[in-house]
Amino acid sequence: MDIHSLQTRLRAFSAERGWEPYQNPKNLAMAMVVEAAELVEIFQWLSPEQAADIAADAARQQHVGEEIADVLVYLLQIADRCGIDLEAAVERKIGLNALKYPVPSSPQPAPTDSGVADAPSPEPRAD
Amino acid sequence: MDIHSLQTRLRAFSAERGWEPYQNPKNLAMAMVVEAAELVEIFQWLSPEQAADIAADAARQQHVGEEIADVLVYLLQIADRCGIDLEAAVERKIGLNALKYPVPSSPQPAPTDSGVADAPSPEPRAD
Amino acid sequence: MDIHSLQTRLRAFSAERGWEPYQNPKNLAMAMVVEAAELVEIFQWLSPEQAADIAADAARQQHVGEEIADVLVYLLQIADRCGIDLEAAVERKIGLNALKYPVPSSPQPAPTDSGVADAPSPEPRAD
Amino acid sequence: MDIHSLQTRLRAFSAERGWEPYQNPKNLAMAMVVEAAELVEIFQWLSPEQAADIAADAARQQHVGEEIADVLVYLLQIADRCGIDLEAAVERKIGLNALKYPVPSSPQPAPTDSGVADAPSPEPRAD
Repeated sequence: MDIHSLQTRLRAFSAERGWEPYQNPKNLAMAMVVEAAELVEIFQWLSPEQAADIAADAARQQHVGEEIADVLVYLLQIADRCGIDLEAAVERKIGLNALKYPVPSSPQPAPTDSGVADAPSPEPRAD
Repeated sequence: MDIHSLQTRLRAFSAERGWEPYQNPKNLAMAMVVEAAELVEIFQWLSPEQAADIAADAARQQHVGEEIADVLVYLLQIADRCGIDLEAAVERKIGLNALKYPVPSSPQPAPTDSGVADAPSPEPRAD
Repeated sequence: MDIHSLQTRLRAFSAERGWEPYQNPKNLAMAMVVEAAELVEIFQWLSPEQAADIAADAARQQHVGEEIADVLVYLLQIADRCGIDLEAAVERKIGLNALKYPVPSSPQPAPTDSGVADAPSPEPRAD
Repeated sequence: MDIHSLQTRLRAFSAERGWEPYQNPKNLAMAMVVEAAELVEIFQWLSPEQAADIAADAARQQHVGEEIADVLVYLLQIADRCGIDLEAAVERKIGLNALKYPVPSSPQPAPTDSGVADAPSPEPRAD
C-alpha cells in the first residue's frame, strides 16, 4: 500500500470539496472513533464463534471491509495532518510491543472458563 | 507499506505468545475501539487550533503516532482474520465516497460561526 | 438519583478547578467516549460467559462500577450544558424503542451457533 | 430518576423480546460504546463555539438528548447485569475525583492559544 500516494489523493479529495477547514486532527479523531464504533457494531450481538466465521458471509465480510477502510482513511489523514510517518510509527510500535511482551519461555496456560478471576489477560493494554 | 508481510508478522507475534484464542474479530474490534479512543483522548481538551499545531510538539506528535499505530495494528489483524484485502477495501471505499460526495460545481460556503444551524456538514456520515 | 442536584455539584466542581472553559459539549463528548472505551476494555478479552459472571469478582466489579460512573458523570455534564432534561429524554427514548421494536407475537427463535447468517439481530441499531 | 424502577422496566422490555441471551455485559458494553460514538458524531464537525450553542437549535438538541439516553439505557443495563449500585458508584467516583483533583489554592491560568505545549490538561484522565 502506497501510504503517501493515498494521503496525497485524500488531501486533493478534501480540497476539492472544501472540507479542509473542518479536518483538523481533533475533528478527524472524532470522525475516526465514530467509524471505529461502526466496526464494533457489526460484532456486538455475535458470539465469538460467529465473529470468527465472518468470512463465510460475503455481505457481512464486505461490510467489515468498508468499516475498516473508513477507519483507515481517517488514520491516514490524521497522520498526514500531524506530519507522522505512518509506516515508521507502526514499525516502532511493533518493536515496543516485542519489548513489552517478551515471548514466554513456557507455553501460556490455555484459556479457562472456570471463572473470571482465572482469565488471563493476554494483552494487558498497549499504552 | 507491505500489508501482507505485516499481517504475517503480527500473526507470528500472537502465536508465539499464545494470544490466538482471544483474537477473534469480535475481541479485536473491541481492542481496536479502545485504542481509537486513546487517540481521541490526546485531543479532548485541545482547541482545534492547538490540535492543528501538534507537529510543533515532538512528544505529543510521537504519542499521536503511537496511538495511530495501535489502531492500525488491530485493523490489520481484523482484516487478516476476516479474509479481507485491506488495500482493495480502501480503494473501493474511496471510489464509493467519490460517487457519494461529488465535487461541487461552485465553491462551498465558508464555514460560519453565526450559529449551529448554519454549520455545513461537510461529510454527512460515511456509512 | 437526583439528577439536578448531581449536575449542580458537578458544575461547582468544575468551576472551583477552572475547568469550565474546556467543558463545552464537544470536548465533553470526546471525554465521554474515552471513558466508554475504558469500560469496553474491561471486557475485551473475556468470553461472554466470563463477562456475565463479573459479579463473582469483587475487584473487577468495582472497576466496572468506576468506569460506568465516569461515563455517567460526563453524560450528566453534557445534558447540563445542552439544556437537556435527562430523565425526560430517557422516558422519551424508551417510548420510541417500544414503538420501534414491538413485542413479537410468537417467541423469538433461540440463538443458534450454526452460522453467522443465522444470527438474529435482536436490536438492529437504535438510531 | 428512579434507577431501580428503570432497570426493572428495561429487564422486562428485553425479556418480552427474547433479547436476554444477547445482553451479557460484554455485548452491552459494545452496544454502549456504539451509542457513545453516535453522540460524538453530532459534534465532530462543529466548532467548540457551535457545540456550546446547541440549545439554540431545537432539532439538534433533541438529537443530543436521544443519544445521551441511548448511552444511559445501556449503562443502566450493564450495572443491572453486573450487580452494581449505580448511584453509589457515582457518589464514590465523585469522592475519588475530589481527592485526585484538589481545589487549587490560586486560580488556574487562563487557557492560552500560544501553543500546544502551553495547553493545560484540566482533567489529566480520570482512571
